[in-house]
Amino acid sequence: MKNPLTLALYQCTPAPLDVPANLRRLETAAEQAAQGGADVLVCPEMFLTGYNISFDAVRQLAQAANGDYAQAVADIARRHAIALLYGYPELGDGGAVFNAAQWISAAGERCLNYRKTHLYGALDKTQFSPGRPTPGWVDLKGWRVGVLICYDVEFPENTRRLALEGAELIAVPTANMPEFDFVSKALVPVRAYENQVYVAYANYVGSEGAVIYGGLSTVAAPDGALLAQAGHEETLVFATLLAPRLAAARLHCSHLTDVKAP
Amino acid sequence: MKNPLTLALYQCTPAPLDVPANLRRLETAAEQAAQGGADVLVCPEMFLTGYNISFDAVRQLAQAANGDYAQAVADIARRHAIALLYGYPELGDGGAVFNAAQWISAAGERCLNYRKTHLYGALDKTQFSPGRPTPGWVDLKGWRVGVLICYDVEFPENTRRLALEGAELIAVPTANMPEFDFVSKALVPVRAYENQVYVAYANYVGSEGAVIYGGLSTVAAPDGALLAQAGHEETLVFATLLAPRLAAARLHCSHLTDVKAP
Repeated sequence: MKNPLTLALYQCTPAPLDVPANLRRLETAAEQAAQGGADVLVCPEMFLTGYNISFDAVRQLAQAANGDYAQAVADIARRHAIALLYGYPELGDGGAVFNAAQWISAAGERCLNYRKTHLYGALDKTQFSPGRPTPGWVDLKGWRVGVLICYDVEFPENTRRLALEGAELIAVPTANMPEFDFVSKALVPVRAYENQVYVAYANYVGSEGAVIYGGLSTVAAPDGALLAQAGHEETLVFATLLAPRLAAARLHCSHLTDVKAP
Repeated sequence: MKNPLTLALYQCTPAPLDVPANLRRLETAAEQAAQGGADVLVCPEMFLTGYNISFDAVRQLAQAANGDYAQAVADIARRHAIALLYGYPELGDGGAVFNAAQWISAAGERCLNYRKTHLYGALDKTQFSPGRPTPGWVDLKGWRVGVLICYDVEFPENTRRLALEGAELIAVPTANMPEFDFVSKALVPVRAYENQVYVAYANYVGSEGAVIYGGLSTVAAPDGALLAQAGHEETLVFATLLAPRLAAARLHCSHLTDVKAP
């Protein structure tokens, strides 16, 4: 039986264009999360640079997945012995820029780099190229963790793909607006229920230029219950995942085995 | 612009094995629904015979989609000038029995016969053969209506398929138990939201042998709101679908156009 796994979600206001400031904030949050017993800290979408920063700034700040940002984040992960999932603009080999999130282990290793597949609206579609679905999951203390970004989780095709690949937790950096609060309140718990997985959805609060964010960072249990949900303030959201609860949900509901019919 | 469409859902206790009694109840409910302005009456899963009636009884009562049951239902539809969607055990050409639902128009025409694709648990799997996905939709006053049965709606693959085929309303006869109330309360509204369609989910109440039903028959709007939801009593649930609300939801959310990416 797997040991309990503790998550922390970093719900914060964006600090657009200021990577050094965001690295300092990440250091502080990682320290607090580790002190609170968390095994991983999940940050919002495009955390390192901010999200609503313009086409030009995205290109100026984009880095390869193994660039200086990753080195700085790995140092933080090692210093506080906590895994980190952070959003950033990724410069791909051919010059394309992706809305990406990277998982770095507590030992400072780059474990998974995920590129958002479903771009939302004009802001996303002008700033980024869409990613192809990234297969696979990260192992965290025996738990299999898949990654999506924001709008991706609204498509049940994406969560299903990860669940069928073996994910037990889907971690989702996001930048969601109040007019889509329904996603935190109802859709994320249903994604968890229909796949018998935990889902962790880490959002911004506050504003960034003309864009306002809705908070409500959420951890949903595999039985559809809200395990933890933030309000509209800066905060770390903690939640502990239990293997018996996952097993009970998979006994109660059988969608993952029945999905292949007929 | 389409005219408003009014639904009635017939939430009732099962009357197992007694088809004549169920036809009489259908006549009464159809009359009341028509008097209430409904364009269609949606009945629960396996309404004509009851659901938890044993392997042998299912085979004894199963009929072809154009059999005597269909004739009797068509007479009721014509008498009250209302479309009817009813569940029944269908005897297929090769002798297989399906958990089916048939749509009969107000003119008494058989418009769509749907066979449940995702069978739930031992009761379903011993009594029935699974159907293949039935493409297409019924036209009701210019609204495109797709049909699923019970457990089918819990699979987002099924609702997505119908929405991409053009469904604007998905009508779902069901037989859902209280330990799965989450389906009425959260999953059905999310199915509506993520596809920008109306979803109508017509359940039983009361008990049938050892099986207890949870009521909470639901009509969800394409913006995810609960348009109507029954409690735990026998009732007709009325709801009116509005084309401007559908259009507004499709303006607010773009899942149906974005799903094909990347």
